[in-house]
Amino acid sequence: MAQPATPVTPALKDDLDIVIPTIRNLDFLEMWRPFFQPYHLIIVQDGDPTKTIRVPEGFDYELYNRNDVNRILGPKASCISFKDSACRCFGFLVSKKKYIFTIDDDCFVAKDPSGKEINALAQHIQNLLTPSTPFFFNTLYDPFREGADFVRGYPFSLREGAPTAISHGLWLNIPDYDAPTQLVKPLERNTRYVDAVMTIPKGTLFPMCGMNLGFDRELIGPAMYFGLMGDGQPIGRYDDMWAGWCAKVICDHMSLGVKTGLPYIWHSKASNPFVNLKKEYKGIYWQEEIIPFFQSVAFPKECITVQQCYIELSNQVKEKLGHVDPYFQKLADSMVTWIEAWEELNPPTKAAPAAQSNGVKKDAPAPKPK
Amino acid sequence: MAQPATPVTPALKDDLDIVIPTIRNLDFLEMWRPFFQPYHLIIVQDGDPTKTIRVPEGFDYELYNRNDVNRILGPKASCISFKDSACRCFGFLVSKKKYIFTIDDDCFVAKDPSGKEINALAQHIQNLLTPSTPFFFNTLYDPFREGADFVRGYPFSLREGAPTAISHGLWLNIPDYDAPTQLVKPLERNTRYVDAVMTIPKGTLFPMCGMNLGFDRELIGPAMYFGLMGDGQPIGRYDDMWAGWCAKVICDHMSLGVKTGLPYIWHSKASNPFVNLKKEYKGIYWQEEIIPFFQSVAFPKECITVQQCYIELSNQVKEKLGHVDPYFQKLADSMVTWIEAWEELNPPTKAAPAAQSNGVKKDAPAPKPK
Repeated sequence: MAQPATPVTPALKDDLDIVIPTIRNLDFLEMWRPFFQPYHLIIVQDGDPTKTIRVPEGFDYELYNRNDVNRILGPKASCISFKDSACRCFGFLVSKKKYIFTIDDDCFVAKDPSGKEINALAQHIQNLLTPSTPFFFNTLYDPFREGADFVRGYPFSLREGAPTAISHGLWLNIPDYDAPTQLVKPLERNTRYVDAVMTIPKGTLFPMCGMNLGFDRELIGPAMYFGLMGDGQPIGRYDDMWAGWCAKVICDHMSLGVKTGLPYIWHSKASNPFVNLKKEYKGIYWQEEIIPFFQSVAFPKECITVQQCYIELSNQVKEKLGHVDPYFQKLADSMVTWIEAWEELNPPTKAAPAAQSNGVKKDAPAPKPK
Repeated sequence: MAQPATPVTPALKDDLDIVIPTIRNLDFLEMWRPFFQPYHLIIVQDGDPTKTIRVPEGFDYELYNRNDVNRILGPKASCISFKDSACRCFGFLVSKKKYIFTIDDDCFVAKDPSGKEINALAQHIQNLLTPSTPFFFNTLYDPFREGADFVRGYPFSLREGAPTAISHGLWLNIPDYDAPTQLVKPLERNTRYVDAVMTIPKGTLFPMCGMNLGFDRELIGPAMYFGLMGDGQPIGRYDDMWAGWCAKVICDHMSLGVKTGLPYIWHSKASNPFVNLKKEYKGIYWQEEIIPFFQSVAFPKECITVQQCYIELSNQVKEKLGHVDPYFQKLADSMVTWIEAWEELNPPTKAAPAAQSNGVKKDAPAPKPK
């Protein structure tokens, strides 16, 4: 039931990079070998760059540590977080592929209710290659899955759907809870396998988790900036949330879809709730102002590329969240730096100049790191 | 997995009516006996009033045929459809209970993946008695189910949720498809059991099916009018859709929640797609104007009861859909008649006058039909 309609492995083999942020040896890849080995990996090593990260034999990968980030981006490296999994977005920046799948190194292969191992990557690809339905809710969930369709009362003019920009996967075992919930429910495990993929409706925000996430880099890549977190910053654990809120309002403006649901991965261990509380506590109250801000974001119709939307968003962040804490001024500046870095490493091709491509930017050759 | 956290049978025994529109003997109730027998049934007999409908022994019920409808409502009976399951809303009108569950007579008890029979009514009650989350999407679905909660990044100020007004259940076996989809996919069956309940976000419309539906009559009852369908009308099979669109925009205005998902019933047989096409075809193209209309509906803040919203909505229907077809003029008038009938049979109590109760109208004694 969790499998896509047609065999997809190794679909998009040359069009998708797997991005993994890590501070440790990547033994977790052994379990993913049957599914990941055909693909190229981009490993972003967080923390001490002198440490050697061991990658299991037989995987095709490039690895970047902090020294590489600094060398490649120069002064713009300031927009990439250090000592936080937010550094993963550096991998999005240097990829030259159309699609990205990113996964945490404490995530393992989950099983569906029949006991079959779930090829999470194949499900993300299926989600990304079929349209989304952001303009009207379909009660039988994703109408593009086998055995499903649009139900009675679904307007026919909306059945074409919208291109899918983001596929947000879920987690069995350790749920993605905040520190207060972790503290209150230390033993809660997610055992409910919900056999559904659905589109998050236009105008609705959601908490995007970076643990198990696919996206179309050409459609939404420049909005997938994971912000300033970790070392030297006042908060952590809001990196993926920030990216999700920014990306969602831009997807809504550009009529792109965001799906959530399948695939599940097996999240193996809970992070320390006390450490998490320290990282999160400012985010927990800032968020009460951040969410109303994002709920009210609107873009002028002149914003026709993701980059243009993102620069506009950075202006609005500075203007409307700057009073919350000086951190948001700095974050807004980093958002601009991120777009500058994106433009530098991903220059528009002559065939599809960014300003005329309605946000769909084509890949272009760019200097590879050594 | 499909069971609510706590035993609920026979929860709300004295606070819930089961409304069944029918044209035939109600043998289908035999299968529901273990779940429905403690509750009171309101049977609305459609079509020929001289026909005798047989109800299995042991059920507590009242039955209304067209003669009863005419006698009780007098000239206002014109708002109740004839020869169409839209007549079910007469049952909502005469009920004196806080909650309604309505089900079609071709719906049987479904089984969950473990083979256990699903008590659909108990799940609806569970859905209605726990809050909804219309203001922000929770990726682990209903956070009020056992084993689930709000995920990281869900604003704490929104975790109280909103009162649940509607619980929309789904169907295994025959899916609720429109005639064109039925014709194209005659053999498609819904076999996917999705173990989820979720809130349809604020601002998002959905196709509400009346086959397996629970709602809080005090919160949203006056908006659950199933329109003019069937005999003498130019369309059919849009009765529940109409009620769903009206109810959803009013729920959004009043900060009430709408859930969809569990419970499933077993929908036994597909209706004739050729007959359905004849009933639906005008709706299929009218809908292309109806949906943008509902997407743009806004209520003045003076509308603080469901009745006030509904009257305002009828004005907007007349004004903005009247040009589509004279039918919408007639429908708008019927919406007013419906509210007049509602007020007559459900007068506000002194303790909670409708205009001051923020839309939560208390039950009040009203003349019982003989």
